[in-house]
Amino acid sequence: MRLDTLKVPRASELVADKLRSLIVDGVVHEGATLPSEKELVSQLGVSRATLREALRILESEGLISTKTGPKGGIMVQRPGSANLTRSLSLLLQLEETPFSDLLEARRLLEPICADLAAQRVTPAEMADLEGIIAQMRLTLDDTNAYVRQQLAFHLKVIAAAHNDVLRLYTLSVGELISARATQVGLSIEQRQIGLKVAEGILVALKTRNGKLAARRIELHLEAFETIIEKD
Amino acid sequence: MRLDTLKVPRASELVADKLRSLIVDGVVHEGATLPSEKELVSQLGVSRATLREALRILESEGLISTKTGPKGGIMVQRPGSANLTRSLSLLLQLEETPFSDLLEARRLLEPICADLAAQRVTPAEMADLEGIIAQMRLTLDDTNAYVRQQLAFHLKVIAAAHNDVLRLYTLSVGELISARATQVGLSIEQRQIGLKVAEGILVALKTRNGKLAARRIELHLEAFETIIEKD
Repeated sequence: MRLDTLKVPRASELVADKLRSLIVDGVVHEGATLPSEKELVSQLGVSRATLREALRILESEGLISTKTGPKGGIMVQRPGSANLTRSLSLLLQLEETPFSDLLEARRLLEPICADLAAQRVTPAEMADLEGIIAQMRLTLDDTNAYVRQQLAFHLKVIAAAHNDVLRLYTLSVGELISARATQVGLSIEQRQIGLKVAEGILVALKTRNGKLAARRIELHLEAFETIIEKD
Repeated sequence: MRLDTLKVPRASELVADKLRSLIVDGVVHEGATLPSEKELVSQLGVSRATLREALRILESEGLISTKTGPKGGIMVQRPGSANLTRSLSLLLQLEETPFSDLLEARRLLEPICADLAAQRVTPAEMADLEGIIAQMRLTLDDTNAYVRQQLAFHLKVIAAAHNDVLRLYTLSVGELISARATQVGLSIEQRQIGLKVAEGILVALKTRNGKLAARRIELHLEAFETIIEKD
């Protein structure tokens, strides 16, 4: 008789699995507070050290944030794209990926989203996009405010593709590019061109012309790449 | 005078940051063993509980694996795409993303890789692809062996795009699809068609015809979608 090595699960993993299920299955919602450490230790019947290890796992997955102090506690949160961005960032650091790979990935991913958005954008999303463009017009004289609106425009187009996988991936690539690139101030001419491009994309979406929307986003990103400073 | 809330970093985070830098900066390499817990506690001057919390963070990032037993220890590893896949999987569960989003994302991402591969594939990679196709021919009668070769073919094409971001994203989407889909056995006709498709992609890469390579991968994935069982 020969026995296989027994894989004994670590107590902290089991605790993390248990708490993770509560969040993933929607038993506890975003913004809710978990019971205190002391309470969890007593309910789960594990040591404080084990519980803390489990909390660090969930924290690193972006599912909870813990705060000390009078208003503290263990808060449940949605990781959004932040956790994915961190995983990707770590991998790219390990592989010493050049910045150009990130730029290229975005230049290929965002047009795909724009193409899908032309097919799927809802009337409510079109109204949001029109509102953002109105804001871009109003903030042409204020670089920071303008840049925020332009970012909002991109995010809205990406969301209008209605594909969670592509949205999360495109967002995380964009976040990494923003984190690594020191943007130089946009000149008024560049802001005016940016506004024209956004208006052009809006028309392409309105006429359900996916190929045109994709091409316009691509040209826009190419132009953006020439004006950012890379670290 | 008004003071901002002081953000006191947690000891376990500082320890995780320190060990993570050693790995990311290449001071300790993949496959290396870190000093024992006892040794790390003594060198870093932290409590055993703090060290363990830090180790759980690094483990959940996929940077280390810890084993107990006589051959145990804290092994440094490269997370590969597994960690990214896990992050994505968690997010998609939280958003209750339909399986069709995953299939669509792959159907759009892999052709992009094939297009880039046609521009960038190296002679060594072409030789590998030819070797894999030769294996596909030899294993036509053995579904499992054939499927392994077909997967190897896809991975090699994705790698030949030479873009880390797109490679990691395409791999993680593929991994999630494999995890969720119960593949039905391929009939001999389906394997013969698969082989023909792979040969066609090889020709497209050889002639540097990116659009054709992309189109052939896309058709192949569409065909694949009709034969998998979705859970």
